[in-house]
Amino acid sequence: MTIDYGATIAEIAQELAEKTNHGKVPSYIPELAKVDRNRFGICLTTIEGDRYMYGDSNVKFSIQSISKVLSLTMAISLQGQESLWKRVGVEPSGNPFNSIVQLEYENGIPRNPFINAGAIVIADILVSQLQHPKQEFLAYVRGLCNNPDINYNRQVAQSEKSVGYMNASLAYMMKDKGNLINEVDEVLDFYYLQCSLEMTCVELVDAFRNFGDTGVPFGHGAYFLTSSQARRVNALMMTCGFYDESGEFAFEVGLPGKSGVGGAIVALLPEKYCVSVWSPPLNKKGNSYMGMMALERLTTKIEGSIF
Amino acid sequence: MTIDYGATIAEIAQELAEKTNHGKVPSYIPELAKVDRNRFGICLTTIEGDRYMYGDSNVKFSIQSISKVLSLTMAISLQGQESLWKRVGVEPSGNPFNSIVQLEYENGIPRNPFINAGAIVIADILVSQLQHPKQEFLAYVRGLCNNPDINYNRQVAQSEKSVGYMNASLAYMMKDKGNLINEVDEVLDFYYLQCSLEMTCVELVDAFRNFGDTGVPFGHGAYFLTSSQARRVNALMMTCGFYDESGEFAFEVGLPGKSGVGGAIVALLPEKYCVSVWSPPLNKKGNSYMGMMALERLTTKIEGSIF
Amino acid sequence: MTIDYGATIAEIAQELAEKTNHGKVPSYIPELAKVDRNRFGICLTTIEGDRYMYGDSNVKFSIQSISKVLSLTMAISLQGQESLWKRVGVEPSGNPFNSIVQLEYENGIPRNPFINAGAIVIADILVSQLQHPKQEFLAYVRGLCNNPDINYNRQVAQSEKSVGYMNASLAYMMKDKGNLINEVDEVLDFYYLQCSLEMTCVELVDAFRNFGDTGVPFGHGAYFLTSSQARRVNALMMTCGFYDESGEFAFEVGLPGKSGVGGAIVALLPEKYCVSVWSPPLNKKGNSYMGMMALERLTTKIEGSIF
Amino acid sequence: MTIDYGATIAEIAQELAEKTNHGKVPSYIPELAKVDRNRFGICLTTIEGDRYMYGDSNVKFSIQSISKVLSLTMAISLQGQESLWKRVGVEPSGNPFNSIVQLEYENGIPRNPFINAGAIVIADILVSQLQHPKQEFLAYVRGLCNNPDINYNRQVAQSEKSVGYMNASLAYMMKDKGNLINEVDEVLDFYYLQCSLEMTCVELVDAFRNFGDTGVPFGHGAYFLTSSQARRVNALMMTCGFYDESGEFAFEVGLPGKSGVGGAIVALLPEKYCVSVWSPPLNKKGNSYMGMMALERLTTKIEGSIF
Repeated sequence: MTIDYGATIAEIAQELAEKTNHGKVPSYIPELAKVDRNRFGICLTTIEGDRYMYGDSNVKFSIQSISKVLSLTMAISLQGQESLWKRVGVEPSGNPFNSIVQLEYENGIPRNPFINAGAIVIADILVSQLQHPKQEFLAYVRGLCNNPDINYNRQVAQSEKSVGYMNASLAYMMKDKGNLINEVDEVLDFYYLQCSLEMTCVELVDAFRNFGDTGVPFGHGAYFLTSSQARRVNALMMTCGFYDESGEFAFEVGLPGKSGVGGAIVALLPEKYCVSVWSPPLNKKGNSYMGMMALERLTTKIEGSIF
Repeated sequence: MTIDYGATIAEIAQELAEKTNHGKVPSYIPELAKVDRNRFGICLTTIEGDRYMYGDSNVKFSIQSISKVLSLTMAISLQGQESLWKRVGVEPSGNPFNSIVQLEYENGIPRNPFINAGAIVIADILVSQLQHPKQEFLAYVRGLCNNPDINYNRQVAQSEKSVGYMNASLAYMMKDKGNLINEVDEVLDFYYLQCSLEMTCVELVDAFRNFGDTGVPFGHGAYFLTSSQARRVNALMMTCGFYDESGEFAFEVGLPGKSGVGGAIVALLPEKYCVSVWSPPLNKKGNSYMGMMALERLTTKIEGSIF
Repeated sequence: MTIDYGATIAEIAQELAEKTNHGKVPSYIPELAKVDRNRFGICLTTIEGDRYMYGDSNVKFSIQSISKVLSLTMAISLQGQESLWKRVGVEPSGNPFNSIVQLEYENGIPRNPFINAGAIVIADILVSQLQHPKQEFLAYVRGLCNNPDINYNRQVAQSEKSVGYMNASLAYMMKDKGNLINEVDEVLDFYYLQCSLEMTCVELVDAFRNFGDTGVPFGHGAYFLTSSQARRVNALMMTCGFYDESGEFAFEVGLPGKSGVGGAIVALLPEKYCVSVWSPPLNKKGNSYMGMMALERLTTKIEGSIF
Repeated sequence: MTIDYGATIAEIAQELAEKTNHGKVPSYIPELAKVDRNRFGICLTTIEGDRYMYGDSNVKFSIQSISKVLSLTMAISLQGQESLWKRVGVEPSGNPFNSIVQLEYENGIPRNPFINAGAIVIADILVSQLQHPKQEFLAYVRGLCNNPDINYNRQVAQSEKSVGYMNASLAYMMKDKGNLINEVDEVLDFYYLQCSLEMTCVELVDAFRNFGDTGVPFGHGAYFLTSSQARRVNALMMTCGFYDESGEFAFEVGLPGKSGVGGAIVALLPEKYCVSVWSPPLNKKGNSYMGMMALERLTTKIEGSIF
């Protein structure tokens, strides 16, 4: 049976348009708060490269935590996995309330690279390994999408840093435990810039489609992920990609993926397709309210989970 | 490319035979301690039903926590998912050290049905719903394997209960929080009996092959799991099947599965195959030392992970 | 300056009679819930033995946790301090929310003998050391007050035990960690009976006056506390006597003392006086609402704190 | 009976001189590590002002956490108690392992003003209330001792700040929770300077003798503590003055007091005497090894505890 992906995503978008969006746009920084809550974009690409899109799929938004997957892949290709996985774990955090407890208990080793503490360690690795971390990371992401029109939003980065007390608290604890090599301020500076990357739904699937093409390594220049490394990153997205809702997402959707507080979610079915949705209001766990519903419907309609 | 499963599992078994087994057979109850640590069995069945086996694949062992998947499916088919998932979550526990903390913090709702607290809640549901829980659950498992030669080991159950202080502590806390309906003693009685089920590698794949045939419902008599329910149980095995090593298993192996302290592991690749391994010595996280290695090699050799 | 204790406690009682009692009588067991919330008694005795009383000072009530001080002194005189303080600590618990966390983290060693877990360990010691724990403990308390008219209330004990799931959870955890020697059921049986002791305000000061006469040992029969041991128990009452309000009580009142959920508080100023108050409604921390106010006023009026 | 305090402290000093000091001088900053571990000083003053001293009682050392009592009294006299006790509690912390857990759980309100987090909040209050916090606090302490020869050690302050990652972590968490008004950096700057105060045993008893004279207010200039406020600070020293060894100190010594990692302890018996000891090596809980022993002996020899 061939699936009409284009018709399916349009159908989903129309169904959701009739639903009330009970999500909330986060208000902690003005730059993210002022985005139009009614934006909705979706883009699906097959592994072969056929793209289907609907709505605001070419509008830029802040990818936020989705960038953690990209910084991780760059760090893996830079220094290999062995030493990296000594500084950050691969287990779900399972801790809705306070990751700092776990961090203290587990000696400053974050549970996985997708919780903030873990992503800060990855940022520390990039700061150590790269001459010009900010430029080189941007070049890496542009290369993945084959698209020079991707940029940071320095104002968003600055705003987030200015109220990012909790991340500073986490970073100083890791510094205390010896799991942060560079100065806290320098690492956080890079971290917030990385999170401020702006991309569209289309650009996201261009970048993440690579993960779905599991038979071949991907990357460019000096930075390549082997096929086996890519599969492991998929496994991490499966178990840890949605904060404290990762189990729920696996349970309801059944795809590896990653969400960000900017309201975007990207997910993929290996060897089949990669999909991204963007709708700014978030549910209580911090994932896009409509994005979660869209992907539940998608894997229900096309029976396309990995399970 | 067709895969020669039989040759592959034999090859793995032979490779592992040359490795030192650094695992330890648990000593907390005499019945489990006296098992021969050199036992090794493996059995793989394709979804179509072709079986391949090696070593002690027809020797009975205590399936222990693997039984939690079967009690869960029986509970789902008995009372549906809606009310069940109000009493137990679907998130990984992420807590190596003390699930009782999480249980207290989260008001007596266990994080998932595969940690002990969660399985005790499922046992409570079966005790409430069934007239003769012990007989009916046994009949259910026998039916899944189409095999009347499956039994409890009452001596193992009794031994485990007599030293099961921590489970009693968990159960009383849930009773205190209102998440246990029947008497603690009655629920634990059933729980330990359920865990004492004895099966062989072959019988395990016969039972769990059903989960891999994701297009069709499975079960017998009054107890059926829809295709969508089965997929969700697969997702749970993926994210929560290996105690605090679930992330690691997803990362290294990439299959939904479940392990037990008896030294067995069962795992499956939907639409393809189901595999079980048995080797009693456990690693530090409580999973079969050789079992984990066997499955890592399997998905490396045949590139058969879900990612 | 000589203090007119009689006039002072009458004055306090009259002042409090005009205040609204915002406390609540605990409802978890019928026997304690049906007590008249307007009961109010107070009794003060100088170390020399002059007694002053007001209100319902001769009415019996359930002393509950106040009994923990008496079981501790009996245990100290039975087996000395050295081995006892290896099984239970002398630090405040500082944990409003869940002592089971601390218990698990600290390997089953309760922080002090006045939190429930600690008192259960003390009960375990008495069960081990005494031939007829229930009779002998009762005889010990009667002897301290020189009063044969003190009894358990078996109905209260039975009621509390039947809903005491949290204590069972704590006890099983300690059993798991090896800090409970006897069967959980037998220990809890004794523990609930001990807590069900019924005494009057007058009887309480008769028993606790001994602690204030710090220059001489006290006890009777085979059970004596040295002067130095008594001082140490006073220190414990100071730092740990009021659940999570111990610091507050030290801060506001400044006397060693102990409260119980029956609504009684007993406190003392070494070498000077011992005082008890009874008023059933409790504040949010589980201490008598009016009792706390009465003692604050007392040490303000007579400048009689230990600081 | 009149007590010969001079003979008593000399006797204690000589007894301790024969004991092996199993304590360790902290090595985390060079300035504190290079102090001579054999230094030993003791000074006792009666409330009337008779001073007895022995050994290095006129040698300056870093008072460290003992300064937290002085900053607290200044903060109380500046803004009164009402608003102050909304931002910091009066309960013992009871948490040997990680105060950051409690801080997160309790919404950024430290348990008491003597744990680091609490002292940082007090520092924040002083930074808010004073025009020139550093100079004014120094003037306040000098005034309490009536001694202009008391100074900060800026090198110690700088060293401690440069490795004080854990305090930065705590401070940023409180900033996140809204319990820190000024910039983290400014508050920590003041905090480390305050802790770097250098005093002698004699100067310490001169300052803390005031707390023992409980009938009269004390202070100077605009800063006075009422008699009732001083008593409450004594109660706090009793329940929270010795980190996680506060219960132990109350139990073994029975005096309100405060210790610092510089190896000093100051303690007092209201209306009777104030005593300070200095010996740099610390026990495992961070209190002076010999200092604790000296005070245990003192209250044993003169039966001078508050209980």
